[in-house]
Amino acid sequence: MDTLFSNITAVTMADRLPVILGAYVGVTGGKISYISQKPPEEHADRIIDGRGMVLMPGLINCHAHLPMTPLRGYGDDHNLTDWLNNYIFPKEDLWDERAIRAATLLGLAEMLRFGTTSVSDMYYFSDTVCQCVSEVGIKGNIARSVTVFEDDYCFDKHGPSQELVALKEKWHGFDNGRIQVEASIHAEYTSFDKVWQGLAEYAINEGIGMQVHVSETQNEHESCLEKYGLTPAQILDVYHVWDTRSVAAHCVWLTEEDMELFARRGVSPVHCPNSNLKLASGIAPVRKMLDKGLNVTLGTDGVSSSNNADLFEAVKLSALLSNGSTLDPTSLTAYQALKLATVNGAKAQGRENECGMIAPGLDADLIMLDFTQPHLIPCHNPVSNLVYAASGHDVVMTMVRGNILYENGTYPTIDLQAVLQEFHDYVIPLMFGNDREDPVIG
Amino acid sequence: MDTLFSNITAVTMADRLPVILGAYVGVTGGKISYISQKPPEEHADRIIDGRGMVLMPGLINCHAHLPMTPLRGYGDDHNLTDWLNNYIFPKEDLWDERAIRAATLLGLAEMLRFGTTSVSDMYYFSDTVCQCVSEVGIKGNIARSVTVFEDDYCFDKHGPSQELVALKEKWHGFDNGRIQVEASIHAEYTSFDKVWQGLAEYAINEGIGMQVHVSETQNEHESCLEKYGLTPAQILDVYHVWDTRSVAAHCVWLTEEDMELFARRGVSPVHCPNSNLKLASGIAPVRKMLDKGLNVTLGTDGVSSSNNADLFEAVKLSALLSNGSTLDPTSLTAYQALKLATVNGAKAQGRENECGMIAPGLDADLIMLDFTQPHLIPCHNPVSNLVYAASGHDVVMTMVRGNILYENGTYPTIDLQAVLQEFHDYVIPLMFGNDREDPVIG
Repeated sequence: MDTLFSNITAVTMADRLPVILGAYVGVTGGKISYISQKPPEEHADRIIDGRGMVLMPGLINCHAHLPMTPLRGYGDDHNLTDWLNNYIFPKEDLWDERAIRAATLLGLAEMLRFGTTSVSDMYYFSDTVCQCVSEVGIKGNIARSVTVFEDDYCFDKHGPSQELVALKEKWHGFDNGRIQVEASIHAEYTSFDKVWQGLAEYAINEGIGMQVHVSETQNEHESCLEKYGLTPAQILDVYHVWDTRSVAAHCVWLTEEDMELFARRGVSPVHCPNSNLKLASGIAPVRKMLDKGLNVTLGTDGVSSSNNADLFEAVKLSALLSNGSTLDPTSLTAYQALKLATVNGAKAQGRENECGMIAPGLDADLIMLDFTQPHLIPCHNPVSNLVYAASGHDVVMTMVRGNILYENGTYPTIDLQAVLQEFHDYVIPLMFGNDREDPVIG
Repeated sequence: MDTLFSNITAVTMADRLPVILGAYVGVTGGKISYISQKPPEEHADRIIDGRGMVLMPGLINCHAHLPMTPLRGYGDDHNLTDWLNNYIFPKEDLWDERAIRAATLLGLAEMLRFGTTSVSDMYYFSDTVCQCVSEVGIKGNIARSVTVFEDDYCFDKHGPSQELVALKEKWHGFDNGRIQVEASIHAEYTSFDKVWQGLAEYAINEGIGMQVHVSETQNEHESCLEKYGLTPAQILDVYHVWDTRSVAAHCVWLTEEDMELFARRGVSPVHCPNSNLKLASGIAPVRKMLDKGLNVTLGTDGVSSSNNADLFEAVKLSALLSNGSTLDPTSLTAYQALKLATVNGAKAQGRENECGMIAPGLDADLIMLDFTQPHLIPCHNPVSNLVYAASGHDVVMTMVRGNILYENGTYPTIDLQAVLQEFHDYVIPLMFGNDREDPVIG
């Protein structure tokens, strides 16, 4: 075998045996080939000593906007309209493919550092995003988000844009499925019926997934009701948007009927608690969605509203918020919260036969956390410590398909110094001018 | 001077000049002796290169139960009564001073690692806690919590216990005020009028502070109303409990009248968002308390409910929750949130002329954070990055009165290996038996 984790605490996320103490986990040809409490007889090229460490499936971030890293913390603490119109949108007009490349690589470094092995991303410049994902080795379900108020350049009448078609042809299924291209309607309020119908038909015919922002804010939800007499979930359903594997980001204001609709259509809501709280959108009813049988997942959203890509924060916050908002301390257990970011995430991405658990034959998408630090001692239950006490900072190794992409501060597939230099030389001057002071990148 | 931080981003928390880029901060005899954008002419024994680093006042944790580390994550995800009666209370009966010593040292290591330089702690075995605080070098306002349903051993009729009197004589003012001993009524529902009156009189006469749990749960708040026709804040006020400098932990269910009372009496509420959410107590009305003029502070609570001592989590969560629960994204700004854990904390502890800011003449209670990691790049505003993107894990140095107590994984005043050995040899077997498996301490 290629790699053997020896004597490690394995949090498998498989209900049959969720935690194995003193485990030996082997990786061969990018797949998990061995799990036992006995050492294997087979030789391993590399043995990673797992004493004091926890091994678990890599986290799956179901809603992000990778290229937004240059806007981290930009215009914080303003109201939503002011923030979008005076801070975010004007800056988003400024960048180009060169800037997007550096921004995306920084975002991917951050995700790997915090233990994310697969990401569903919705943004523009998607060819550049796919290029970065292809080089770095992470898994990505990459969508070219469509915002269109009339038939403008990026949208061909009644169908997908040429950009999406080209993206799909070039990248969908890349590296044996490591990259999946998906369709994306930015949101109900940023497009109209012909767009929904065209993209839905294209996604269904091509067998690709769909990513949409749904009922993020009360205003969005109620304006839609007023305009169409239907909720965003309902009006998009009329145009068959949910007839393909879909993720619906946010779902803060979903009605019970919306939940039942999403359960019937198999739509996976993406809970983004950091972003929803910071932007004052509200608290999504995670417990109710789970009770309705929905495959709830987690996302960070972009770092302009999260403000980091540490999905462990979302795992902890999902459990805390569910308890705190329902006044029931058993509302969402640690194990249930961790499932949102692993098993459920894999299902939402169409990767349930590929990752999300430690099980023989699945891809070796694994992360290792150092449990020897004071804040993780003692360890009565590794799942509890992972959810309530740990952080993405405790991740010391991130592996996708058996390849180590992050290890103790190093990124084998990303030249982080070159990325920071590019921020200094190009991205920041382009977007913010030359007279800006920054403690690190100038 | 003893130490010079050179070319560092100083987040001073002084409203006049909250952020100084390229700062030089000097420390002499345990005090801040120099702040300028120019290098000092004076020689410094040690120069710490601050490029890419942020220097700020150490965080002040106003509500903790340091010795509870052995119960981290123990009995998570049960309802409150089950958790207390079947998990927490039975284990609290088992420990002794030897176990408490190891438990407290572990708790202090964790606090220092996450950048806390002063802690208000309320628990039992307070002599041992003071001993640990004295050795480690952190600042502590240490209270012996009183829970008494009848005149039992630890409480002398109509006055303080002999234990509190002895504690106060031995430790109050230790090391030029580094340790402050305080009185503590555990809560309204765990004692009665003679206790309140006796402890209040003692605290007022001796000029020491007071720590009390107040209106943490709806049940506690409403039972008190039913029993006395007054809220916990009000009934304790009748017995003069708030006539000395006081902190009131939690304050989730405080009424507007309670807030006005606390404003008049100068009582500082301690917001503990992690604990309040996890135990499903609710969300404290921080914005309303601030509007009423209250000196709101932050606490982690014990790690049995937090489940770590990273006060940066509470800083972030206080801002997010305030926005999310009021549906106003400007409800609590990053700078306001950071003040809760610095300036306001110092005031609550009676240390406002001593720490909580970077200012000439104050104690050098300072922490340094590494801002060169991907999740903190770029840095449009150091305060925003500190609150929304950073974590206690980014702290690389913690200094109290000019003494470095944590630096890059090392604890100059704590033998962490010996503490872990003691957990393995004594604490865990004593409390949980010999057959327990733990990935680190066995």
